[in-house]
Amino acid sequence: MDFLRSIKSKQALEIILGFTWNPEIEIVGIDDGLNRVLAEDIISEEDIPPFSRSLVDGFAVKVRDTYGARETNPSFVNIKGEVKIGETTHLEIGDGESVRVSTGSMIPKGADGVVMQEYVRYLLDSIEITKTIHKGENICFQGDDFKKGDKILEKGKRLNYFDLGVLASIGRSDIKVYKRPTVGIISTGDEIIGINETPKPGQIRDINRYTLSGLFEKEDFTVIHAGIAKDNPEDILNKIKLIGDTDIVLLSGGSSKGDRDYIIESIKRLGGEIFFHGINIKPGKPTIFARLGDKPLFGLPGHPGSCIMVAIRFVLPILKKMEGERIKGTAGMISGTLTANVPSSVGVEECVDVIVERKKDGIFVTPVFAKSSVISSFTKSSGYIIVPEEKEGYERGEEVEVYFF
Amino acid sequence: MDFLRSIKSKQALEIILGFTWNPEIEIVGIDDGLNRVLAEDIISEEDIPPFSRSLVDGFAVKVRDTYGARETNPSFVNIKGEVKIGETTHLEIGDGESVRVSTGSMIPKGADGVVMQEYVRYLLDSIEITKTIHKGENICFQGDDFKKGDKILEKGKRLNYFDLGVLASIGRSDIKVYKRPTVGIISTGDEIIGINETPKPGQIRDINRYTLSGLFEKEDFTVIHAGIAKDNPEDILNKIKLIGDTDIVLLSGGSSKGDRDYIIESIKRLGGEIFFHGINIKPGKPTIFARLGDKPLFGLPGHPGSCIMVAIRFVLPILKKMEGERIKGTAGMISGTLTANVPSSVGVEECVDVIVERKKDGIFVTPVFAKSSVISSFTKSSGYIIVPEEKEGYERGEEVEVYFF
Repeated sequence: MDFLRSIKSKQALEIILGFTWNPEIEIVGIDDGLNRVLAEDIISEEDIPPFSRSLVDGFAVKVRDTYGARETNPSFVNIKGEVKIGETTHLEIGDGESVRVSTGSMIPKGADGVVMQEYVRYLLDSIEITKTIHKGENICFQGDDFKKGDKILEKGKRLNYFDLGVLASIGRSDIKVYKRPTVGIISTGDEIIGINETPKPGQIRDINRYTLSGLFEKEDFTVIHAGIAKDNPEDILNKIKLIGDTDIVLLSGGSSKGDRDYIIESIKRLGGEIFFHGINIKPGKPTIFARLGDKPLFGLPGHPGSCIMVAIRFVLPILKKMEGERIKGTAGMISGTLTANVPSSVGVEECVDVIVERKKDGIFVTPVFAKSSVISSFTKSSGYIIVPEEKEGYERGEEVEVYFF
Repeated sequence: MDFLRSIKSKQALEIILGFTWNPEIEIVGIDDGLNRVLAEDIISEEDIPPFSRSLVDGFAVKVRDTYGARETNPSFVNIKGEVKIGETTHLEIGDGESVRVSTGSMIPKGADGVVMQEYVRYLLDSIEITKTIHKGENICFQGDDFKKGDKILEKGKRLNYFDLGVLASIGRSDIKVYKRPTVGIISTGDEIIGINETPKPGQIRDINRYTLSGLFEKEDFTVIHAGIAKDNPEDILNKIKLIGDTDIVLLSGGSSKGDRDYIIESIKRLGGEIFFHGINIKPGKPTIFARLGDKPLFGLPGHPGSCIMVAIRFVLPILKKMEGERIKGTAGMISGTLTANVPSSVGVEECVDVIVERKKDGIFVTPVFAKSSVISSFTKSSGYIIVPEEKEGYERGEEVEVYFF
């Protein structure tokens, strides 16, 4: 019964992230690449841009021909020709010469800067330049973005919209990505009913199904629901079989150690292995983590507030890891000043949702005290803070770190 | 030609957000509600929870019967019965009495606290309580989450996963939301080719199509592409007609004031109204905002870095407003210390992408200096800072605000 002792949250996360999972690889088009995790390093096979381009409309010149040029003392250079957009050129610029270019035009040989047309006065077949320009001004040089052979995106990176632009720039229309794990969700509890039913006295509607789905769908994971299982091992087993094709199984409710907690029994009957039962956190203590065949399974607390907090802190990280993402820590990126005391007990790591407000004199963090069974407090909150196990709370005025939802 | 003067970014945003648009309303199921904007206030028609529930497995009691109870000096109370999960009860507790409850059980009348079973020793038909509990302990009272008549979610709120839980708790399976605006995208430029083509000298691949799509699809907007238009009004007009059904039209490229800028001409030929041509920002100056029939149209800069920054700062806000979202300012939520000088010219508002690093002694912000024509710099960046028009840059060591991508 060793697993029945509560373990620390850090240890829990280590066990969870230590779960072995080998994601499969698939090929998707760049149009479907957003938010997918790369299963290959992306190497540029060419210089980007492949030629030096003008960044403005104007005249390509040798910059030393503009030295000292100003409104009242312009430089004169001849116009040797023009490079139209999209066309190649074999023109070469010598001293005292210029070539007309548009934004995006190829820069002719010999030129090392472009004068914007705003600083040019037209004469017959020459121009007056009214501004000194420096070397390289208004030119995007060949290879400025990437050089041939550069590793431009790394395996394990989740692709954002900039990355899609990078892939487009080198002409990669198909990419290798990891398959996304699918999530199976079961709500358990004799008192839980579907949201379209009218609760009889003693019954409440299923909330966890919707908060969990939303959390995972926000990250583009596919969620399959098995519905609501009654508090008996047979029904739980049947529901687990129903979502047997998903890559991870989440049960909410029935994970505490009461008489009606059939999740442990169900896991054992299916030949699963229980890694821990209980994390020393509040809310969220009665959390189970187990292996069922080669898949991870969570027994999440039934209280909506506890359930979603454990999903955010412990389930989302394993899902991202199962998808092959290289995770760089999940440190909350802001800190602010507490506007109220946050009492907490030594010996349990406590998680408190907070409202973050930006004011003229700083960032202020207001705790929202709520029972783990209520969900309404979260809709007002911006994120949460963590009171470590060894601390007896925080005091008003202390600086705390906020993890955003 | 008044519109050809550049306007300040604040003024540009005011004009853009002042665009009149009346979003239509549609009804969606809660399963499709994530990230949609509510078109109605949500009022609870009942107390949630509808009855007082136990938060733990244990015994419902009158708390005064536990006063002074401890391990060495337990209180004794009789067991009057049990309330199973999901069932209603008419039991009533008197002095010296208790009723066995499970997590989620209805609390019997007369009880004002629940003793966790960990603090209970079983005798024959009574129990020893080994801990003093306080009033309300381990009970979630009727209406703790919401009271009947409470406005629980406001019109104009974008629904997150907590909000879905709130809707589920009151049994709202269908909700009124605003229709999402659809986005039509056209890339323009004689030098621009599709990403599957091999660029000839002078040509480059279309990047903006992919960065723009990714930006909008990340926010779940539907994007329609008209492909690449050549630099002539006919082709631009044809492409605009191709995506005539979308709610907003974005053209990238060809918005500066060179000889080949046919976007202004195209807008005029279609009877559109130009609100401004040019924002006094860097990158992104050559931006056009116009009205075409009853729809907004943007001419975005062609340089990938400029194009995406204008889309983030000026297009995304109007899209969210067109969707009916009540916008509460877009202030970047973190500030950090600059690790390098950021030079900038007085008279232009400059936007610089940055890397944010959290270290033991604070948050550090490192500018990534890049030409507006490159996209690679963005894949390393976490966000951007803004150097106001009136400032001549920032110095190393200064505190700056970062807007996250």
